[in-house]
Amino acid sequence: MSEFVYRNKEELLYSQRVAQLSKALWRVIEKDWQCWIKPYDLNINEHHILTITYYMKGASVSDVAKYGSMHVSTAFNFSKKLEERGLLTFSKRDDDKRNTYIEITEQGKELIDEANRHYFDTSHAVLEGSVKMKELYGRFPEFLEMTAIVRNIYGNEFIETLEQSFQSLSHTLDVIDQEVHHSELMKEA
Amino acid sequence: MSEFVYRNKEELLYSQRVAQLSKALWRVIEKDWQCWIKPYDLNINEHHILTITYYMKGASVSDVAKYGSMHVSTAFNFSKKLEERGLLTFSKRDDDKRNTYIEITEQGKELIDEANRHYFDTSHAVLEGSVKMKELYGRFPEFLEMTAIVRNIYGNEFIETLEQSFQSLSHTLDVIDQEVHHSELMKEA
Repeated sequence: MSEFVYRNKEELLYSQRVAQLSKALWRVIEKDWQCWIKPYDLNINEHHILTITYYMKGASVSDVAKYGSMHVSTAFNFSKKLEERGLLTFSKRDDDKRNTYIEITEQGKELIDEANRHYFDTSHAVLEGSVKMKELYGRFPEFLEMTAIVRNIYGNEFIETLEQSFQSLSHTLDVIDQEVHHSELMKEA
Repeated sequence: MSEFVYRNKEELLYSQRVAQLSKALWRVIEKDWQCWIKPYDLNINEHHILTITYYMKGASVSDVAKYGSMHVSTAFNFSKKLEERGLLTFSKRDDDKRNTYIEITEQGKELIDEANRHYFDTSHAVLEGSVKMKELYGRFPEFLEMTAIVRNIYGNEFIETLEQSFQSLSHTLDVIDQEVHHSELMKEA
């Protein structure tokens, strides 16, 4: 029996299965993401750059590339476009002259907040496809395997930064919520 | 308390978390997939079209689009290119004149077999990132949540066809293996 192919058959099948599932999942997420942010004249990379700089509170171009899963040149070129629109600014830091840092402007934050306020105006198939699991198990899937694999590939820091950015997003949503609540109270008064 | 944003905060956070994990996972899979098939002068869509027609044994252009998670026009245009290279043929069926069917040629099959024989010549980060879980649990992750969500979005038939195509791939690998084994025996004799 030839060792080479046989020994790796399980690995090859596993690897190609994950690849196909991942492609199918990403394609539908990509489509929904595009639909959601279309009214704000942003593409996925631009939106991703803005959210990273928003929730990470000061990121270098290479941070943006890393956490946005895009090329450094892609991160830089789209950031330039966003700068021209007044949505972010570039800067150098005194303690780090080599890297270019990106900061989101108030206008950029407003655009992202606005997009989040309208998140449910468009459909999100993954969410709809997860509702039955939420009903069954009382909570949304945790994607522990997927998270573990992404952690093994990109490192602990990647996942930790992702979690921190979600806490930051969560806080931002609370603030939006209070503002909406406040303006509703004012209307009633 | 404003109901709108608050009620949906968990959903929004969940949905955006899955989107970011999925993007990170797909980007690394995409890169590895491209590297693997580069020597065969194929891009991911072309490779995907060939494997679908190989393992599904006769698929229409819309089947290819569906199971390859691509646009019908993308599926058609890349299939045309593959036809020009003699890797597949188009045909109409007597019982179904409306759809165009695609069949992989012997040359196409040989190319896919060749690519599979060399699967481990390039790195596959997902595989490497899953080895620790295999050691810990005795088997590779099953991605039950991801599969369930893809099933809910694309339908039962999608997952069933995927499973059938993996069984077909598995059988093909056994045949390749026997051939390698046979040719090694011949060398020894």
